[in-house]
Amino acid sequence: MSAIGRRRGIHYLQKLSAANIPSDLIEKGQSRVIDASLTLIREKAKLKGELVRALGGSLASTSLLGVPLGHNSSFLQGPAFAPPRIREAMWCGSTNSTTEEGKELKDPRVLTDVGDLSVQEIRDCGVDDDRLMNVISESVKLVMEEDPLRPLVLGGDHSISYPVVRAVSEKLGGPVDILHLDAHPDIYDAFEGNKYSHASPFARIMEGGYARRLLQVGIRSINSEGREQGKRFGVEQYEMRTFSRDRHFLEHLKLGEGVKGVYISVDVDCLDPAFAPGVSHFEPGGLSFRDVLNILHNLQGNLVAADVVEYNPQRDAVDGLTAMVAAKLVRELAAKMSK
Amino acid sequence: MSAIGRRRGIHYLQKLSAANIPSDLIEKGQSRVIDASLTLIREKAKLKGELVRALGGSLASTSLLGVPLGHNSSFLQGPAFAPPRIREAMWCGSTNSTTEEGKELKDPRVLTDVGDLSVQEIRDCGVDDDRLMNVISESVKLVMEEDPLRPLVLGGDHSISYPVVRAVSEKLGGPVDILHLDAHPDIYDAFEGNKYSHASPFARIMEGGYARRLLQVGIRSINSEGREQGKRFGVEQYEMRTFSRDRHFLEHLKLGEGVKGVYISVDVDCLDPAFAPGVSHFEPGGLSFRDVLNILHNLQGNLVAADVVEYNPQRDAVDGLTAMVAAKLVRELAAKMSK
Amino acid sequence: MSAIGRRRGIHYLQKLSAANIPSDLIEKGQSRVIDASLTLIREKAKLKGELVRALGGSLASTSLLGVPLGHNSSFLQGPAFAPPRIREAMWCGSTNSTTEEGKELKDPRVLTDVGDLSVQEIRDCGVDDDRLMNVISESVKLVMEEDPLRPLVLGGDHSISYPVVRAVSEKLGGPVDILHLDAHPDIYDAFEGNKYSHASPFARIMEGGYARRLLQVGIRSINSEGREQGKRFGVEQYEMRTFSRDRHFLEHLKLGEGVKGVYISVDVDCLDPAFAPGVSHFEPGGLSFRDVLNILHNLQGNLVAADVVEYNPQRDAVDGLTAMVAAKLVRELAAKMSK
Amino acid sequence: MSAIGRRRGIHYLQKLSAANIPSDLIEKGQSRVIDASLTLIREKAKLKGELVRALGGSLASTSLLGVPLGHNSSFLQGPAFAPPRIREAMWCGSTNSTTEEGKELKDPRVLTDVGDLSVQEIRDCGVDDDRLMNVISESVKLVMEEDPLRPLVLGGDHSISYPVVRAVSEKLGGPVDILHLDAHPDIYDAFEGNKYSHASPFARIMEGGYARRLLQVGIRSINSEGREQGKRFGVEQYEMRTFSRDRHFLEHLKLGEGVKGVYISVDVDCLDPAFAPGVSHFEPGGLSFRDVLNILHNLQGNLVAADVVEYNPQRDAVDGLTAMVAAKLVRELAAKMSK
Amino acid sequence: MSAIGRRRGIHYLQKLSAANIPSDLIEKGQSRVIDASLTLIREKAKLKGELVRALGGSLASTSLLGVPLGHNSSFLQGPAFAPPRIREAMWCGSTNSTTEEGKELKDPRVLTDVGDLSVQEIRDCGVDDDRLMNVISESVKLVMEEDPLRPLVLGGDHSISYPVVRAVSEKLGGPVDILHLDAHPDIYDAFEGNKYSHASPFARIMEGGYARRLLQVGIRSINSEGREQGKRFGVEQYEMRTFSRDRHFLEHLKLGEGVKGVYISVDVDCLDPAFAPGVSHFEPGGLSFRDVLNILHNLQGNLVAADVVEYNPQRDAVDGLTAMVAAKLVRELAAKMSK
Amino acid sequence: MSAIGRRRGIHYLQKLSAANIPSDLIEKGQSRVIDASLTLIREKAKLKGELVRALGGSLASTSLLGVPLGHNSSFLQGPAFAPPRIREAMWCGSTNSTTEEGKELKDPRVLTDVGDLSVQEIRDCGVDDDRLMNVISESVKLVMEEDPLRPLVLGGDHSISYPVVRAVSEKLGGPVDILHLDAHPDIYDAFEGNKYSHASPFARIMEGGYARRLLQVGIRSINSEGREQGKRFGVEQYEMRTFSRDRHFLEHLKLGEGVKGVYISVDVDCLDPAFAPGVSHFEPGGLSFRDVLNILHNLQGNLVAADVVEYNPQRDAVDGLTAMVAAKLVRELAAKMSK
Repeated sequence: MSAIGRRRGIHYLQKLSAANIPSDLIEKGQSRVIDASLTLIREKAKLKGELVRALGGSLASTSLLGVPLGHNSSFLQGPAFAPPRIREAMWCGSTNSTTEEGKELKDPRVLTDVGDLSVQEIRDCGVDDDRLMNVISESVKLVMEEDPLRPLVLGGDHSISYPVVRAVSEKLGGPVDILHLDAHPDIYDAFEGNKYSHASPFARIMEGGYARRLLQVGIRSINSEGREQGKRFGVEQYEMRTFSRDRHFLEHLKLGEGVKGVYISVDVDCLDPAFAPGVSHFEPGGLSFRDVLNILHNLQGNLVAADVVEYNPQRDAVDGLTAMVAAKLVRELAAKMSK
Repeated sequence: MSAIGRRRGIHYLQKLSAANIPSDLIEKGQSRVIDASLTLIREKAKLKGELVRALGGSLASTSLLGVPLGHNSSFLQGPAFAPPRIREAMWCGSTNSTTEEGKELKDPRVLTDVGDLSVQEIRDCGVDDDRLMNVISESVKLVMEEDPLRPLVLGGDHSISYPVVRAVSEKLGGPVDILHLDAHPDIYDAFEGNKYSHASPFARIMEGGYARRLLQVGIRSINSEGREQGKRFGVEQYEMRTFSRDRHFLEHLKLGEGVKGVYISVDVDCLDPAFAPGVSHFEPGGLSFRDVLNILHNLQGNLVAADVVEYNPQRDAVDGLTAMVAAKLVRELAAKMSK
Repeated sequence: MSAIGRRRGIHYLQKLSAANIPSDLIEKGQSRVIDASLTLIREKAKLKGELVRALGGSLASTSLLGVPLGHNSSFLQGPAFAPPRIREAMWCGSTNSTTEEGKELKDPRVLTDVGDLSVQEIRDCGVDDDRLMNVISESVKLVMEEDPLRPLVLGGDHSISYPVVRAVSEKLGGPVDILHLDAHPDIYDAFEGNKYSHASPFARIMEGGYARRLLQVGIRSINSEGREQGKRFGVEQYEMRTFSRDRHFLEHLKLGEGVKGVYISVDVDCLDPAFAPGVSHFEPGGLSFRDVLNILHNLQGNLVAADVVEYNPQRDAVDGLTAMVAAKLVRELAAKMSK
Repeated sequence: MSAIGRRRGIHYLQKLSAANIPSDLIEKGQSRVIDASLTLIREKAKLKGELVRALGGSLASTSLLGVPLGHNSSFLQGPAFAPPRIREAMWCGSTNSTTEEGKELKDPRVLTDVGDLSVQEIRDCGVDDDRLMNVISESVKLVMEEDPLRPLVLGGDHSISYPVVRAVSEKLGGPVDILHLDAHPDIYDAFEGNKYSHASPFARIMEGGYARRLLQVGIRSINSEGREQGKRFGVEQYEMRTFSRDRHFLEHLKLGEGVKGVYISVDVDCLDPAFAPGVSHFEPGGLSFRDVLNILHNLQGNLVAADVVEYNPQRDAVDGLTAMVAAKLVRELAAKMSK
Repeated sequence: MSAIGRRRGIHYLQKLSAANIPSDLIEKGQSRVIDASLTLIREKAKLKGELVRALGGSLASTSLLGVPLGHNSSFLQGPAFAPPRIREAMWCGSTNSTTEEGKELKDPRVLTDVGDLSVQEIRDCGVDDDRLMNVISESVKLVMEEDPLRPLVLGGDHSISYPVVRAVSEKLGGPVDILHLDAHPDIYDAFEGNKYSHASPFARIMEGGYARRLLQVGIRSINSEGREQGKRFGVEQYEMRTFSRDRHFLEHLKLGEGVKGVYISVDVDCLDPAFAPGVSHFEPGGLSFRDVLNILHNLQGNLVAADVVEYNPQRDAVDGLTAMVAAKLVRELAAKMSK
Repeated sequence: MSAIGRRRGIHYLQKLSAANIPSDLIEKGQSRVIDASLTLIREKAKLKGELVRALGGSLASTSLLGVPLGHNSSFLQGPAFAPPRIREAMWCGSTNSTTEEGKELKDPRVLTDVGDLSVQEIRDCGVDDDRLMNVISESVKLVMEEDPLRPLVLGGDHSISYPVVRAVSEKLGGPVDILHLDAHPDIYDAFEGNKYSHASPFARIMEGGYARRLLQVGIRSINSEGREQGKRFGVEQYEMRTFSRDRHFLEHLKLGEGVKGVYISVDVDCLDPAFAPGVSHFEPGGLSFRDVLNILHNLQGNLVAADVVEYNPQRDAVDGLTAMVAAKLVRELAAKMSK
């Protein structure tokens, strides 16, 4: 299916709002649907929180939250289908449930799941992106409400990182440090007029003061605007052109001191497409999977939340190779976050 | 991913219920999650119902309800991923929005959508199948509550037809006639000990008295138990072996007189796999797509609800050919049902 | 690759024409490139014509002309890559060189080839569609110039049928009868504002008076505009809904009497996608390959030109099944035309 | 992998026979390897025969024999890999073990299996095709030796039908009638100089007097030599061009009277490639799967042996659709043969 | 095809042994089939041995032995189809016959082939795994019997390494050193109750005293049992987490001193799935192909036997990329072993 | 499609030249077709040259020239289809138009395109390879005629490098230094009797004195002839076996001093097939994409022309991963060459 096709979609209420339907009928209905969607997340988070607390002994416990949103992508929309595919790969039985450093993923104190936010249903009711972004932020806060749960968000395209980081920062009461693995800086002021574009979340985050340091690693598609925006916001951009020189530094990062913690945002296309063909933007010359693990395993800092975004199942190899790649990123991040 | 893998899944609460977690904590949590899930369906149905009534002039209006359930399949679990793929194909822009007989699908009086029931999230909270089936029935009734909406359910595996037909019959207050297009009779008493197996829904439906006549068309994989169960319940089984002889009769059906209406259940594998490779069970020798349309277009009767099940995106051709096939079945059924 | 991506392309001269480049420099350059392109077709046609005449004894001899144009497609652009793939399939050695009715394709009196018009190169020089359509018409006439060559045009998307039929009619000095096999009527007045859209060629053809009768066979995606335009132009539209009823008539057609001859336009998507998955628009419920051959083999009339369009190699199955389907259509049409 | 590549292979002994290795060393070694290969078939046939006789009550019992030979194909060599794939599809659990007319395939009286002849190992020892063909004939006779076993041979390319039919006729002591389903007549005197080519087996069979009547059904790629050879040997050739006219006759065949029985040879490419893409030669316009079943189910006659050939797993769709097609042909033929 | 499907299989004799068939009939038949299978291997080994000896001058000559066994895999069974695919890739003509270090593979003194053991046929006769493992050991010894042949075994799943190493050790009269390249330690005491599981061969090997040192390289999926079993048996486990640190040591190994020689077992999944997608278990973060070659090329020691296992053609990319990877491993190992 | 099939092709004039067609008729026709083909390239180059000169300020400006020739490949012919696929990937919209080092590709002073030479059409007129190679050389010179255009040639198979380098050297009046990235040395004297084979261009180049230094990097499939030819011509061959040792040297190359400049020839198979599966010859153990970029970015020298060859779209992954790889190579080379 083409990007054009998927972009069209059908959103009756949005289209009809200018017609002969009373607008308050529509607005009330939208609010009720949004409330019900958030209630569903809240109840799941509450149950998982109660469970972890009943088991006891956990200071930080990772909980997955899916945000199946793909319409802010500039090219392909497949990431809207990613969360169920990543979950399937995580538990598919082709590997065991222990992470590389020995954490047991079947222990709810290490990992629980609060399911997916009803993004498509909310959009189908004609809700616009301003409001949708607020709903995403709200859902993240609902997870953080339930101590010791910490959210690991499954995208979705990269546009979701803005409302997620905003929620994390607002909930914790101050900025975080961000480690951002990606082929692209995603820091355009706006892309094709869309301020919520998947090419712009880090512009929104830096403007909002939600992050202090932003390290971008894996960059290999950047134009002059990307470099200027980077300077403007004081971003530390590590390009692949100099990765062999930077490798030692990046494999020994210490982040999050003096702020509320560390946030990690992994765009699957930070990897070379040989390692992760299931992405919307093939950008050869990227990191190997082991490069990424070396960076993540050795990072020092208090990981408070994370996301794994831009896995596109519609571009994956037949047997779901990239789903397994995304799943292993999620597994190792979950182990890193829980304690 | 193998069937084995997908079956395992991870359902913490179910596993923990025998452990040191207070059972009432779990039970209360499950009830709250189920309530929230049904509230979400109710609110969406309500909004769509209000919308159609505000536009006026509709006697029957199709509304899609997704039931992404795949775990009762005996072989592969992919149908759990079907509903979003079918919706995507319906609106992908490769075809226009008019059905073969001239209905306009963008008109909400012809078609609306109430989204997917949160099947995976409910299961992840440890809810068992007895209760899950009730939740499915409940969600169908919530759609029917909103006159003039009529449910067209997107499976999921074929096990969902039992709770759906049960809900339809209970809501209407009596049995329906069923036209069932399938390669298999799906009428085992139980399959591998599972009474909710996707191979058994029509045994449950006939036992429950939810249908008067049951016509099965496209059958070409049937063993002695299938034939005996057919006789036991008075099923009219039309096998492909004699399709050229039966064609005229099947292309001129008149159903639903003296009962509450007609229900159509289309298992995508009624089609020959040449026409629909994206199914779990390849059974060569089936119907052509035109054969199916001829049967549906010419059927006389008051269509009160329908389902399209067993589309398996994990078996589909690269560009989603079977998604388009399932989508066209949904489109033509929606047009047939609305009036 | 998405439709969006392919549409962008890069056409320096077009973009620069408003800039500081002298416009006469660009216009002269375009004219020289177009002249050179047409000279290349002319020389190839001349050589093939000389060859067939030297061999003697041929009244009509098919010659292939490729028009690799895909940008007037509303959804996907792959047909621009079709002509070389069809030629490859024609001679790939998996079948012999005799057609079903016994013509020998290796005999130049049955079939020659004048190669592809340089469509992409001409567009890259900034030439617009009005002029490009004229160039296509011109290339067709260059083939017809060389008696006894008759053009069988390999598309390309369906937009090419307009300049091709126009050229045929102008060259012969009057209208033709057209047999048009397609899932869609392609008779919109304009599609998304594009009068050269692949959804509109038959509107242009009928307006121009280039055809007397137009029979459309295989139709199964048609909306009210399609039906109204059909009526407006007196088109004989045969929909798949009634194909079993119309079959006998369509398998015994007699066309072209009182006009300059018969033109056949075969959109590969007239076939059910089970038989031809390599098309941009999956429209289930179509003709079988044998249905198409029965119609073509039994048609009576003087076939003066033809086209096979909308094969999309980017959607084909791995081993080029649809390329073989398109190739066999070309082979059988070539045999039908030569005498 | 290309045909060229596969043809090369490595056959040390053949190459070395002209070198400094004593030829009697090689010849003795070849004979010992052939003897061991046939002993393995003999022992398996014996065990299966003893088993069926011990169970009692069977007049004719089908036994599978694989002949994984692909080097006599003119285009692709994949059929050498077919037998294990067909067996896997037969028992893969996606369908039950009852045939369409109700035979139970798990009953050894209906179906057993004697495994594959070691074709590749024998060739690797430098054995030439004259001798290899004799070994194939011998292996078939070893199965027939064990009353009531009847061989259903899994090819391999079509060249195997010659040694198989020869063995059947010699063992039974007279000619058989043959029903041959295929896109091609396979009756060239020789193809590219190879008298054992997969394009020539029926020339060898008719010359040898091993068949009385030969009916060819599904033909749609035939040249003048094919038609002349057909006349020369009195073959009844039914082309697809006239299938709608011939259908009634072909669905009511009565064969084998006055001869030793009926032999059925099914080339998978008799089917349209929409139904069976996993073949070496795409020839659009073929039979549907149901057409083939109608012919086979209704045939009257004493079926003494059969083959299913030319399934090419290297061309199959990702999930083995054509393997299932070949498997169902084998299943239904097995049921037809056993009694 | 799913794992479930493939596991079922059909083994008549095994199922019938408790029924009314005399058990001695079955046992005698099984023994005769096993004897015939081993005789076939013996004769081929003998012929190849005679050939190499007749050519003279070889101290060690690699001979391939295929063991197409897949049923001890915990997830997918495809490795049962691997040996013919690897052979095809070795000789497919896309590369020349010289190894990287200059050995000529067409020279029988470097490489011969004794074909595949009839694993599936033996299992179909109802032979259990205890006996089957003995038959595999026996076949390996038959190759070693023919001086100077040394076995390079093509799996099959990893369970075959146990009977192969056992045979090598027993034949040589003492333990070997093993270099084991794999993503997993495969040293479970038993997996899902199966002591012959492909997850357990190295537990069996170490228990049996068939190896002195066991080096495991490439490990990145290991749980606590894996680490404990490693300690228990004194295994040297090199995990990918520390590969950059260990690389120098692993690229300069010296093994086999004081024992009977070196055995190398290469599980194709030691490679990152980017380099070898055709494996059952995707475990990202593995070795590059060059890493593996560097380790193998530089290893010092007397290589007495080897295996390449777990290539799964059912997961391979369309054009057999992983087949070529497995083939190159076999080629370079063959060159390493011969002298 | 197999290599055999594609090789056959149909070249009417070539076949007929010995028959009853006057040879001067054919020769004149061929000359006219060749003249028209070269005129088309000349006009496009002229227009692009005028454009760049009108914009001013460019010393060297890259211009793409496609040479879609595949018939000199020993194994597969797909590279004949490469140029349009590479162009499509370059502008497909999944990445921006800035290269890694910051050049803007949409600026005509950096990059223009003169389209494809009509290779297939010329061959179809019966022109032999001697003459065809001259036509290719001529087309390259036509580009170089238009100062400041410098040719970046899109193959086609590697045989095109000979006529391209010859033209560059002749036009500049002396030898160049060549950096040749490839898995193979391509320096056979002739391959299977074809002196224009894609395995032989560097033998022709060195014989002709068109290059002074020839550095081959990435080599991992080389036999004794390859090494001997290397020595004979003084080639500097860097094999992958020692790449870790040679890396520093290769990432700091300085070439072209004292000669007319530097030529770079990139065979896509220099990359490991994990990074570039779309090639005819899978040769595991190659360079990573970043390795190649490091070598190219850091090379010092005056780059006068280049080619990117052997991309085979018929072997590519479904979504054109290797097309993107080839496109990025072209992009970075274009930026390197322009100034």
